[in-house]
Amino acid sequence: MIQPENVKRPEPTPYARGLAKLAQVDGKAGEEVVSSLGDLGRYIVEFSFGEIYSREGLSLRDRQIATVAMLTALGGREPQLRLHLGAALNVGLSPREIEEIIIHSVSYAGFPTAINAMRLLQEVLAETTQSPASAV
Amino acid sequence: MIQPENVKRPEPTPYARGLAKLAQVDGKAGEEVVSSLGDLGRYIVEFSFGEIYSREGLSLRDRQIATVAMLTALGGREPQLRLHLGAALNVGLSPREIEEIIIHSVSYAGFPTAINAMRLLQEVLAETTQSPASAV
Amino acid sequence: MIQPENVKRPEPTPYARGLAKLAQVDGKAGEEVVSSLGDLGRYIVEFSFGEIYSREGLSLRDRQIATVAMLTALGGREPQLRLHLGAALNVGLSPREIEEIIIHSVSYAGFPTAINAMRLLQEVLAETTQSPASAV
Amino acid sequence: MIQPENVKRPEPTPYARGLAKLAQVDGKAGEEVVSSLGDLGRYIVEFSFGEIYSREGLSLRDRQIATVAMLTALGGREPQLRLHLGAALNVGLSPREIEEIIIHSVSYAGFPTAINAMRLLQEVLAETTQSPASAV
Amino acid sequence: MIQPENVKRPEPTPYARGLAKLAQVDGKAGEEVVSSLGDLGRYIVEFSFGEIYSREGLSLRDRQIATVAMLTALGGREPQLRLHLGAALNVGLSPREIEEIIIHSVSYAGFPTAINAMRLLQEVLAETTQSPASAV
Amino acid sequence: MIQPENVKRPEPTPYARGLAKLAQVDGKAGEEVVSSLGDLGRYIVEFSFGEIYSREGLSLRDRQIATVAMLTALGGREPQLRLHLGAALNVGLSPREIEEIIIHSVSYAGFPTAINAMRLLQEVLAETTQSPASAV
Repeated sequence: MIQPENVKRPEPTPYARGLAKLAQVDGKAGEEVVSSLGDLGRYIVEFSFGEIYSREGLSLRDRQIATVAMLTALGGREPQLRLHLGAALNVGLSPREIEEIIIHSVSYAGFPTAINAMRLLQEVLAETTQSPASAV
Repeated sequence: MIQPENVKRPEPTPYARGLAKLAQVDGKAGEEVVSSLGDLGRYIVEFSFGEIYSREGLSLRDRQIATVAMLTALGGREPQLRLHLGAALNVGLSPREIEEIIIHSVSYAGFPTAINAMRLLQEVLAETTQSPASAV
Repeated sequence: MIQPENVKRPEPTPYARGLAKLAQVDGKAGEEVVSSLGDLGRYIVEFSFGEIYSREGLSLRDRQIATVAMLTALGGREPQLRLHLGAALNVGLSPREIEEIIIHSVSYAGFPTAINAMRLLQEVLAETTQSPASAV
Repeated sequence: MIQPENVKRPEPTPYARGLAKLAQVDGKAGEEVVSSLGDLGRYIVEFSFGEIYSREGLSLRDRQIATVAMLTALGGREPQLRLHLGAALNVGLSPREIEEIIIHSVSYAGFPTAINAMRLLQEVLAETTQSPASAV
Repeated sequence: MIQPENVKRPEPTPYARGLAKLAQVDGKAGEEVVSSLGDLGRYIVEFSFGEIYSREGLSLRDRQIATVAMLTALGGREPQLRLHLGAALNVGLSPREIEEIIIHSVSYAGFPTAINAMRLLQEVLAETTQSPASAV
Repeated sequence: MIQPENVKRPEPTPYARGLAKLAQVDGKAGEEVVSSLGDLGRYIVEFSFGEIYSREGLSLRDRQIATVAMLTALGGREPQLRLHLGAALNVGLSPREIEEIIIHSVSYAGFPTAINAMRLLQEVLAETTQSPASAV
């Protein structure tokens, strides 16, 4: 938390660090979302991506497992789940792994939210022209 | 549920497979929970552990990331979250990684559920006498 | 909604009708809850019991199936679920039927909220000294 | 998924039992949903319909009261609620009874989810050309 | 529902009081919603507006802060949130204040529900041709 | 965390600004909560209080209306709701106004979460030896 007194400061601002992390995770889709949200978009960049997603101790892939699982289980957050399904592919999760996360959610949140998430995954996979998971 | 008489069949019943998986994930704590729940406990063993947790395509460690994230974000499921925080340690997640999952949940479900989960993690770590994460 | 000026008025006020319905559904436990809640308690009597529970078109037993199912699935409303598990017995649902409602909830809300509800049912059945459902 | 030709085996597989139950509850609409969902659809058939819905101890009608109540109260699960409103009609609940379940949910989950459910009921009733409930 | 012309009757029925309050809060949009909802709509008028919204002790402006905050945080209630964002403008909250309520929700319910609410606010502001908040 | 003595620097760090705001809103109780939460506590101070609560455009009193409303409606976040009920008194809301917020939540989230919040308010008022609201 203490910032070194360093004339040639190499550390980017949380906002700059967040923009880079956002591009890495969500690609162009994420930038389009936050750019139209005013201060709310700024906090997504600064706090969610510049702070939380930039922390060490958990890989981007593992963070995306958590994100997809939470958005699936909570329900009613379809636009964000859709974006993060694409992000999950970006950071190296396979279609099969994402399908498994969704199936795994059934034990904790039931079938309806899992079905909605699977439909979104099918749409995202169709758009990205990735070969779909055999079972999807 | 009736298994065909088949001399070379190595495949256990879903229930037997589930009991083994439950012991692997939750240890003794899980068995105590399900044994007192009647048919509901049987479905936890057969379906949740014998089917879902036994699927290939996602490691136990990754499944536990998803489980901890969902139970944290949903809130109001403290006994199950507590059990699965212990399970997360069992399957190889470090205290630091679990702490990161909880911090990661803030962006998607806010601070209150994260605080409740962090308190439970502190309790679980104190009980298991694992050296606590420095930041916890 | 217009009340006829009628000397032999048979229609009680919503509050009186609600108190009678509350006693029928929840017994003494319900009255204790609402009496200490000020205007909030008054609305529970007048609106929830005097209006909704007093409607025709769905039996008290069927209403209690819906109530137990909702409180189980929503989670985090344990004191009310406990009260309404007792009410479910009051209006004629058997321990086995209530157990089935809880098990049924798994498909729609997952295992954790069902486990919490089953624990409460076990407590309520132990207190009422009803012979417990064999599977509970 | 293929059932062995076995002259004396009276017990169907959970999958076959689930398909029959699904057809009974949801009609053709349910089959279309699960057939495009891969392993997730298989679990809906095997576990949700082949196990849970096939249990004794609670009638299909009573199970559907619980299902409609839960999906209404949880919110954000509109496609599944829509399907199960049709299923509620299939298993013998009247439009008026379903309307009452939705109105009953207000006490436990508030007006917004009830309004959304009532809109879906109005759509389902319009499609099935059943005479609508007078108050709907 | 028709109120008799009665010179000394100062107290309207809950329904009449609710209709007036509904018009004050939601304008024409609210009336259109409730008129097509049968008894559910009647309870919205009588109970939600005729009783709750008509209570003293908290201003309409303060009630609308609470309403927007709750509907944002709960998620999955978009049609009602949209209506109440317009109502918030009606009772005197500025676009900036409403934007702040939505940003404030992030700490308690995370970014996804806040993003969905901000999109709805942008739509509502565009329709009402109010000059948009600078940051929105 | 230590702020340099700098005569012309008017802008504190987000952390320092957050600590001051936290003390203003939650009093000593808030500091105790965050001090034991590691990095999660740091984000509560820096982001939730140093950024969000420190924003202009909505008064502390109005922010606390939103906070109490959200924590009541979401349910299952009792320790945080309890803290923020005390904070609501700190920033100038009267016991009656807080009671009204809780009653207001019934229309949007139903009675059970409102009952739980009212119980917490009664406890908080008893502890602070404020004269309780007449209706509570």
